[in-house]
Amino acid sequence: MKSSELSGIYRAYIACLNSQDWHNLGRFVGDDVIHNGRRIGISGYRDMLTRDFEQIPDLHFDIELLVCDPPHVASRLAFDCTPKGTFLGLDIDGKKVAFAENVIYRFQAGKIAEVWSVIDKAAIEAQL
Amino acid sequence: MKSSELSGIYRAYIACLNSQDWHNLGRFVGDDVIHNGRRIGISGYRDMLTRDFEQIPDLHFDIELLVCDPPHVASRLAFDCTPKGTFLGLDIDGKKVAFAENVIYRFQAGKIAEVWSVIDKAAIEAQL
Repeated sequence: MKSSELSGIYRAYIACLNSQDWHNLGRFVGDDVIHNGRRIGISGYRDMLTRDFEQIPDLHFDIELLVCDPPHVASRLAFDCTPKGTFLGLDIDGKKVAFAENVIYRFQAGKIAEVWSVIDKAAIEAQL
Repeated sequence: MKSSELSGIYRAYIACLNSQDWHNLGRFVGDDVIHNGRRIGISGYRDMLTRDFEQIPDLHFDIELLVCDPPHVASRLAFDCTPKGTFLGLDIDGKKVAFAENVIYRFQAGKIAEVWSVIDKAAIEAQL
């Protein structure tokens, strides 16, 4: 797959998350997806995302940087949001926080097969 | 610059860090390098790295994933090491810990001009 095509798929995936269009998540995420070393599958992936939106009602994924080298995509996602209670074990309690996630994906047959994600927890702690 | 050439430069940069060859750091890092939004320059960059090796005598950078899309490089670096005392504000105190860093670099004229780094602090906390 060409780099331009893969980055287009990735941008459509992020749009899918932002519109909470869970019905179409399977267009972008493989059945047996692995997240940070755990095979959670698409149902576990959907559960993780719906839980994120439950904890952070104003959650929005903003692509700050996109590095595309098929079959891999790396991106820096920027967040500026208001977790309701606890997030990553931190007591946020309705405070507005800005932080980033650096994440790498391996695609297979046009879908996300594996994800390596790191959220900048230290940056959130510095704002509390 | 070609992708293969840039990934070669990146691998040479990591070899430079692992051999603590600070004399040659300027071959890979730009004079006015920006790290996580702060313009620390090459001297600040060198200070950061020597401090890391001081806090973690067995520090070794291991490239787990490399995503190269000139002028950007993204990588997942794996660490398996023994911080002496405090690291990222955590009291490690000589315990062996394994963790990852997801990091994105922007190169300019063959040297690192900007770095966006996130270390998986939550993974370290889970091991303490």
